[in-house]
Amino acid sequence: SQNMERLLKKRQIRSQLVRECIAEFLGLYIIFGSGSAAQVITSKGTHGSYLTIQLGSIRYCFPLRTHDVCFLSGAHLNPVYSMTLCILGCHPWRKLPCYALSHLLGAFLGAATVYLQYYDAIQVFSGGQLSVAGPNATAGIFCSYPAEHLSFWGGLVDQVVTTAVFLLCCVALEDRRHGPLAEGLHPVLVGGLILTVGLSMGSNCGFPLNPARDLGPRLFTFIAGWGVEVFKAGGGWWWVPTVAPFVGGVLGTLTYELLIEAHHPDTSNEEQSPCQQLEAVELEELDLEEVVVDSGNNR
Amino acid sequence: SQNMERLLKKRQIRSQLVRECIAEFLGLYIIFGSGSAAQVITSKGTHGSYLTIQLGSIRYCFPLRTHDVCFLSGAHLNPVYSMTLCILGCHPWRKLPCYALSHLLGAFLGAATVYLQYYDAIQVFSGGQLSVAGPNATAGIFCSYPAEHLSFWGGLVDQVVTTAVFLLCCVALEDRRHGPLAEGLHPVLVGGLILTVGLSMGSNCGFPLNPARDLGPRLFTFIAGWGVEVFKAGGGWWWVPTVAPFVGGVLGTLTYELLIEAHHPDTSNEEQSPCQQLEAVELEELDLEEVVVDSGNNR
Amino acid sequence: SQNMERLLKKRQIRSQLVRECIAEFLGLYIIFGSGSAAQVITSKGTHGSYLTIQLGSIRYCFPLRTHDVCFLSGAHLNPVYSMTLCILGCHPWRKLPCYALSHLLGAFLGAATVYLQYYDAIQVFSGGQLSVAGPNATAGIFCSYPAEHLSFWGGLVDQVVTTAVFLLCCVALEDRRHGPLAEGLHPVLVGGLILTVGLSMGSNCGFPLNPARDLGPRLFTFIAGWGVEVFKAGGGWWWVPTVAPFVGGVLGTLTYELLIEAHHPDTSNEEQSPCQQLEAVELEELDLEEVVVDSGNNR
Amino acid sequence: SQNMERLLKKRQIRSQLVRECIAEFLGLYIIFGSGSAAQVITSKGTHGSYLTIQLGSIRYCFPLRTHDVCFLSGAHLNPVYSMTLCILGCHPWRKLPCYALSHLLGAFLGAATVYLQYYDAIQVFSGGQLSVAGPNATAGIFCSYPAEHLSFWGGLVDQVVTTAVFLLCCVALEDRRHGPLAEGLHPVLVGGLILTVGLSMGSNCGFPLNPARDLGPRLFTFIAGWGVEVFKAGGGWWWVPTVAPFVGGVLGTLTYELLIEAHHPDTSNEEQSPCQQLEAVELEELDLEEVVVDSGNNR
Repeated sequence: SQNMERLLKKRQIRSQLVRECIAEFLGLYIIFGSGSAAQVITSKGTHGSYLTIQLGSIRYCFPLRTHDVCFLSGAHLNPVYSMTLCILGCHPWRKLPCYALSHLLGAFLGAATVYLQYYDAIQVFSGGQLSVAGPNATAGIFCSYPAEHLSFWGGLVDQVVTTAVFLLCCVALEDRRHGPLAEGLHPVLVGGLILTVGLSMGSNCGFPLNPARDLGPRLFTFIAGWGVEVFKAGGGWWWVPTVAPFVGGVLGTLTYELLIEAHHPDTSNEEQSPCQQLEAVELEELDLEEVVVDSGNNR
Repeated sequence: SQNMERLLKKRQIRSQLVRECIAEFLGLYIIFGSGSAAQVITSKGTHGSYLTIQLGSIRYCFPLRTHDVCFLSGAHLNPVYSMTLCILGCHPWRKLPCYALSHLLGAFLGAATVYLQYYDAIQVFSGGQLSVAGPNATAGIFCSYPAEHLSFWGGLVDQVVTTAVFLLCCVALEDRRHGPLAEGLHPVLVGGLILTVGLSMGSNCGFPLNPARDLGPRLFTFIAGWGVEVFKAGGGWWWVPTVAPFVGGVLGTLTYELLIEAHHPDTSNEEQSPCQQLEAVELEELDLEEVVVDSGNNR
Repeated sequence: SQNMERLLKKRQIRSQLVRECIAEFLGLYIIFGSGSAAQVITSKGTHGSYLTIQLGSIRYCFPLRTHDVCFLSGAHLNPVYSMTLCILGCHPWRKLPCYALSHLLGAFLGAATVYLQYYDAIQVFSGGQLSVAGPNATAGIFCSYPAEHLSFWGGLVDQVVTTAVFLLCCVALEDRRHGPLAEGLHPVLVGGLILTVGLSMGSNCGFPLNPARDLGPRLFTFIAGWGVEVFKAGGGWWWVPTVAPFVGGVLGTLTYELLIEAHHPDTSNEEQSPCQQLEAVELEELDLEEVVVDSGNNR
Repeated sequence: SQNMERLLKKRQIRSQLVRECIAEFLGLYIIFGSGSAAQVITSKGTHGSYLTIQLGSIRYCFPLRTHDVCFLSGAHLNPVYSMTLCILGCHPWRKLPCYALSHLLGAFLGAATVYLQYYDAIQVFSGGQLSVAGPNATAGIFCSYPAEHLSFWGGLVDQVVTTAVFLLCCVALEDRRHGPLAEGLHPVLVGGLILTVGLSMGSNCGFPLNPARDLGPRLFTFIAGWGVEVFKAGGGWWWVPTVAPFVGGVLGTLTYELLIEAHHPDTSNEEQSPCQQLEAVELEELDLEEVVVDSGNNR
């Protein structure tokens, strides 16, 4: 164990960014890997219901704490949230692509794990036919498809509104005016928030909220045998949950910033705002990373 | 971002009251905008149930923290609660109308958003007929209507009792004798409280609890096409959830104050009560605001 | 408000015991008054289910904090719990009858309130016949009756085991070895505990757990029109949930004390145990109360 | 009570290990003793559903705090978790067999209690025939059996993946980089974690997760009348939930350690890691225990 520790120390990843991306990747992997739709669909409702799928959103509590350096309270787990923090000036833009890619990869591998774990159940339920629509459709285990009643514009509005409300509440939870939350309570509240959104805005198209969580598994099903139909279904629906959440995220964040946070009275000059402090740290860290890169220790 | 910040600073709202009202407005908007009845009704129960509607009350956790200056722990989000605090001497009466109006407006716009988001679903479910009663009625998505078995007096008693219990527990949660709650736990408890009330007192007429949350969306449905029937239904039911909660609120608050809080032993003279401290702050703030008004900076 | 406050001060109850009993009374009143069985039964399951009845146990969170002086963390709300604390030497035996009576009275009045609030619904559901058994039975709204499969000995064992597990966990939560819980979390855990017990031990006879909560409402139904059948049903079942919980409570408490707490290493002499400290306070208080009695100020 | 206390002091168990094992035993006993499957199965679904069984996992909150000396936050309650801590160097290997045996014994006696409490219900439901398969099977109350669709390899993968995800999240919760959780919140999060796992990975074979919790009750049913079929069913299924969780546990723990914890930047030399500190304490304690053994005071 002592030797092991020394070995690990040697192989230790010193790049802050790589460490963060691993955490984001693992977070999405865990979240998707424990998706609760698979057992509801393949058991035909005997092992769960619409409610249990929503209650599964409690799983967001856990990876939120796997992150060691982050904006206030944990992993982003969502490229929309990462982008929001970039807009607020609390996260460097240059990190955004790495984060988004980590999310995508995590969700992709998570989907593969779900397929592995439910391979028997999916085979029996679908009769071996991996289809996107019809009574034995199993594509809905992995990513969102619109309900029959939903028009194109209806879907777009739904996605924008849902993500706007979600991000508005996320940003409000981070607002430091209210003082810090009791340690460990933040992920509980985010879990409750996602549960709420699912219970109130999920029937139109399943509240994807998260482009990576939707696109990653969709890519997996495309490769794994459901075919090109996963992109064609719903009149090319796939790009709506990929693009609309970014629009909704910006909308929700700006609403909160302009209506509430901009008018907080005491963010005066003598006390640097937390974001500016964070920026300072990031800059220092940047220098550090460059040095580390020079000495060839990170990968 | 630096320029942006300067611009925002210039346009910053300095009136405490306006800031509070915006927060109250936004809170009600979020709460109503994420109402979970729409998807249960339009999906005919496949995407939720009576329980999921109640579980949606967890959403009260979130806007409770959007408020930056408030009595102890967050936004009021309910004109009855605002009135209660006025009675207890912890909130100035002159602010009450503004608060109530903000609540009403927030709920009204929230209802509009729900209609927008569920436009397709409502059209398909109702066959395009926006009706208040019958098998395809959709008015229940927006505000309360009495169950068939409920008499007029039964409805009145139900509303008074429900709000009395709710307010009694709210006031008990704020009772400072018990020491402060862990930061962030207060909204969780209020969410649980509303869930409890819904699970135990919701079958007579849907526990409105909140006049603004009931009247605002009712006004919206009146305008949006459900017509005057929203006021006529249930024998002119609409005014019961608008007026009775105030009666119940006073009853519940007084019960707690007279039975419990009045007998706390050590609110002695040498230590000013928290309410009196708050009043002092409010008075100072009043002066400040007047100055601000004079210099023409607030709107 | 200033005058009001002075008036209240004059009428202030100085007896600690009376104040505690009022809090206990109010607590039970709130808990029973928000019983969730009424709406499940009278709505024939459209407004709730077995699960919603259990989820209603979250209501225990609220009155637990209405108590201003109490053992560690709140009101007792259960004569079995009061007795347990007496046995542990943390609560004076002489207070037990007053506590138990307050519980009984609170539950009785709570039952009356439920009857008032659901008067219309009960009339319609039962066709005006208040019966204890049969398809339109409504007595189950108010107190426990055994399931058909349950034998007398089965019922007794069920009640003893259920209360033993419940009290064991309650005492464990109060064990000061583990350090204090985050403020406000204790009632949440007790709520969760009751939910758990209900979900796992409720199908035999509805986990009364609490003699006052069972006997009080039973007395109410006896008077209100259900008649003597409420005592005769189930072969004179009524005394099982009245007596067995005390046996179970002692069993559970002793199990914890003898297996766990007795072996905590450092309750050494130099540091007085919390219970002994509490006893000291109680004794002082006793003297105080007697003085108050002499001066004729308490009732 | 004073005498009682002196007597107890005399009989006090001074061996740390024995005290810990009693706590672990009692914890498993409570957890299994309040299993929620019994009432769902014997009531044929009228008193619960798949969801209520999962919600019962909240019971994990309670015994987690019965432990007085433990790694960070409570009892292990699972031999896989104990093994994980041994691997991480935070728990001495020599204690593992005692812990595992305590778990097994606790679950065994818990199963006996459930049988006692539900004796009437099981007799009526099964018509007196204690069978492992068929419409009146009751063995599923006590331990896991694979679903019909599940192949041998599918079951193995399911068990490994499920336990890996579970342990990964457990270890992440204990990661001290994130600072301590609010006191009392840890068990809530673990309860939520188990709920999540049950809602998303429970339909293949009921997420045993815990070899002791599966094997102990299986042994009980073997003795109590279900016979050798409990080991033969599912093609000798019983050893999968007994062995696979250990594999999954190692996998999940290593994943977290190698991807996340190994790269935390500041576990530098000047500050001893918490595990090393704990080891130091353990060593001292070992010496202490040996002395105690010499003086013949522990059993």
